[in-house]
Amino acid sequence: MTEEALEYARDQRETSRQQLTELLRIPSVSTLPDHKGDIRRAADWMADYARRIGLENVELIETERHPIVYADWLHAEGKPTVLVYGHYDVQPPDPLEEWETPPFEPTVRDGKLYARGSSDDKGQVFAQLKAIESYLRTDGSLPVNVKLCIEGEEEIGSQNLPEALQAHHDRFAADVCVVSDSHMRGPEQPSIVYGLRGMVYGEIEVAGPSHDLHSGGYGGAVHNPMQAMCEILAALHDAEGRVTIPGFYDAVRELSEAERAEVMEAGVDESDVLTESGAPAIWGEPDYSVAERLGARPTLEIHGIRGGFTGEGAKTVIPAKALAKVSMRLAAHQTADEIAELFERHVESLAPATVRVSANAFFKADPALVERDHPVMEAAAQAYEASFGARPVFTLEGGSIPVVSLLQRQYGIPVVLMGFGLPDDRLHSPNEKFDLANFERGISCAIRFLDTVATHHG
Amino acid sequence: MTEEALEYARDQRETSRQQLTELLRIPSVSTLPDHKGDIRRAADWMADYARRIGLENVELIETERHPIVYADWLHAEGKPTVLVYGHYDVQPPDPLEEWETPPFEPTVRDGKLYARGSSDDKGQVFAQLKAIESYLRTDGSLPVNVKLCIEGEEEIGSQNLPEALQAHHDRFAADVCVVSDSHMRGPEQPSIVYGLRGMVYGEIEVAGPSHDLHSGGYGGAVHNPMQAMCEILAALHDAEGRVTIPGFYDAVRELSEAERAEVMEAGVDESDVLTESGAPAIWGEPDYSVAERLGARPTLEIHGIRGGFTGEGAKTVIPAKALAKVSMRLAAHQTADEIAELFERHVESLAPATVRVSANAFFKADPALVERDHPVMEAAAQAYEASFGARPVFTLEGGSIPVVSLLQRQYGIPVVLMGFGLPDDRLHSPNEKFDLANFERGISCAIRFLDTVATHHG
Repeated sequence: MTEEALEYARDQRETSRQQLTELLRIPSVSTLPDHKGDIRRAADWMADYARRIGLENVELIETERHPIVYADWLHAEGKPTVLVYGHYDVQPPDPLEEWETPPFEPTVRDGKLYARGSSDDKGQVFAQLKAIESYLRTDGSLPVNVKLCIEGEEEIGSQNLPEALQAHHDRFAADVCVVSDSHMRGPEQPSIVYGLRGMVYGEIEVAGPSHDLHSGGYGGAVHNPMQAMCEILAALHDAEGRVTIPGFYDAVRELSEAERAEVMEAGVDESDVLTESGAPAIWGEPDYSVAERLGARPTLEIHGIRGGFTGEGAKTVIPAKALAKVSMRLAAHQTADEIAELFERHVESLAPATVRVSANAFFKADPALVERDHPVMEAAAQAYEASFGARPVFTLEGGSIPVVSLLQRQYGIPVVLMGFGLPDDRLHSPNEKFDLANFERGISCAIRFLDTVATHHG
Repeated sequence: MTEEALEYARDQRETSRQQLTELLRIPSVSTLPDHKGDIRRAADWMADYARRIGLENVELIETERHPIVYADWLHAEGKPTVLVYGHYDVQPPDPLEEWETPPFEPTVRDGKLYARGSSDDKGQVFAQLKAIESYLRTDGSLPVNVKLCIEGEEEIGSQNLPEALQAHHDRFAADVCVVSDSHMRGPEQPSIVYGLRGMVYGEIEVAGPSHDLHSGGYGGAVHNPMQAMCEILAALHDAEGRVTIPGFYDAVRELSEAERAEVMEAGVDESDVLTESGAPAIWGEPDYSVAERLGARPTLEIHGIRGGFTGEGAKTVIPAKALAKVSMRLAAHQTADEIAELFERHVESLAPATVRVSANAFFKADPALVERDHPVMEAAAQAYEASFGARPVFTLEGGSIPVVSLLQRQYGIPVVLMGFGLPDDRLHSPNEKFDLANFERGISCAIRFLDTVATHHG
């Protein structure tokens, strides 16, 4: 029956692209309140699609903000249950002017589909749906039981997912979870991610004068909050790029020499990072390879600073306040709660008496590490090898997918990070794309995985 | 004739307020291209007013951006010529939400007129116009010759004024210039400013990756331009608040002990700055009093930083670029050209190899020091004393009025900084106001000055 499903998927090639294009046209930007209606449209589209291909118990599970699409097919008696996780929300598309074609008008160029969300994550989660469809439309059944959990808040930190999973514990219960929301090592080198970084996202506020001041009248006699902010932010790294928060690195899992060597071999190297990013040089913690810095080490990033005047021309203002957006990526064995506290305490300790400083970590997600020796990993490896022509390598990735540690904690199940993206997909950036070749091979891989996991899973 | 003029001004009290209100309703924000029409309306309003009160040769002198209102009355044979300088443009009103009443709907509360531009500078320059009107409408003539130079680019650095003054050298030629665009020491203590700081305004750009990056994918392996920017900006001051640009202080005029004592006596003190600014503490160069830090010492301020994400919620972006707006206030004997070069060179020397840094000082104005012993200063002092009931003190101010050094250089004439504002007028901030009592006493003072300068001027 797998062969028929694979053939169905091949025949559906054009239709699948058109369907994905339809989904990508919906600007389901979860962080922007103006797009609430679009988020709903994307959720409805997903639910309708699930219904159409024969999934059952389709429902939008409401949360405080954006709904989760649930569906299942539970007729494979005695077989394991696979939870397919993905997200239908996308990052904001700005800066708009840097897109070659508009972010929500999907366009194919050179075998790549350009659109916001094409790779992260609509294209990837849709590949999983097409795999399910391929079985149900040919054999009328699946080799395993399947449940869908497609959320609308991944790009804003899956804030309501923990509560939803707890409220619907039995409904989402499964033996294994598969997540297609990461990227492979390269077009010809599939990879399975076994570690993801966690995240703490926060804000720092520096307040000084009670109102904006004229720099002529007060410059030199009061501490400019924008300057105090720069002084505080600059103090969060040492000259070599280490984070200076006391205790920041204490809990970080150290890799064995063997794993270090494997991570360096399987992961990105300096030339990958330079080529993909266009940065003039490599930077970061000495004593660690680039692959380790990205996958096995925690970091702290400044995303932007609000306050004062940033328009064209000149305005000589000393702003009353400055606000910085900051996040930390956490490595395995760090916990978000602890790092959030260390961050808040340290930033506030840096406050000079000349300004008022507060730090607030408003989002936390733990890092995740997946057991590499679990049989479902071998099932995934075989599915990849048959579909992409190469055995996957195992990598540690720098991104964060909050659901992974959530599912590990709640169900103790393995989470297979079966990514079909590529490193140059420009996630979160203008001109995000998804390779159509990977879309097709991804569908095949997902079809095969449902078959292999049926036999490999305990 | 002065008595009649004074009486006319008193009788006109209500009318004068209404006229000023009309002028303040025009949102003539010079830095914003959208307000080009408003700038033109304000210039036309000024020109019409000049014509209506009997000034002659009224003309809008066009520049590359905003026009200069010119007018004259040259029938006081054998008497000196007074050039009245002011500006009809205003600062942007943002942040709008912090205004108690809208910035361009002038509102009187508690004897104060609240509006953007009320004190800086429409209210003050209009007091000078009312003084001229008071003579022309009573006696039909003025005790001195008068020329107007009311520009529309003061808030954007008087960029086209030098060229206009040179192109119309003879037209603007005068024996003395009076500028009402500063503030007095307090409501009962008039003051004459004899020193103003100069300014260099520039931008720093830090560029790294060729496009915005996902911090999960690259954080820890490339230098975040926003972080590099903070590191560079933080390095521009030492821990005690001194500017670290090599050579920055070299040319600064050192005050004698006697002048230091006088500046401290006449100028603001710590409690003034704390009360007016609402800042939690005093800050700045050690070894100098607050009055010296503001009036006699150069400074460097960060006005804002553009780049990345500063909205609500979380976006995990490493921005491709960060751009900072920075200005320096220059003390007497520094030159803007030299400081601009030191600034650009030093900032670029701070660039680590991991990013690309450029600095560009796009606006320069020299500091100004006025000869305190010139007879016109005594003329101004007498006019103040008669109008405000107290002899003015002489102060050094922190602000910059580019025209002062321009006129000194081009004509070698004294510039009398006859301010009617008060220290708490909130220039450039929300809720800018002008005391109506000072508006009226200012008109009287300007009337008297035209008389006293006729007799005092060599």
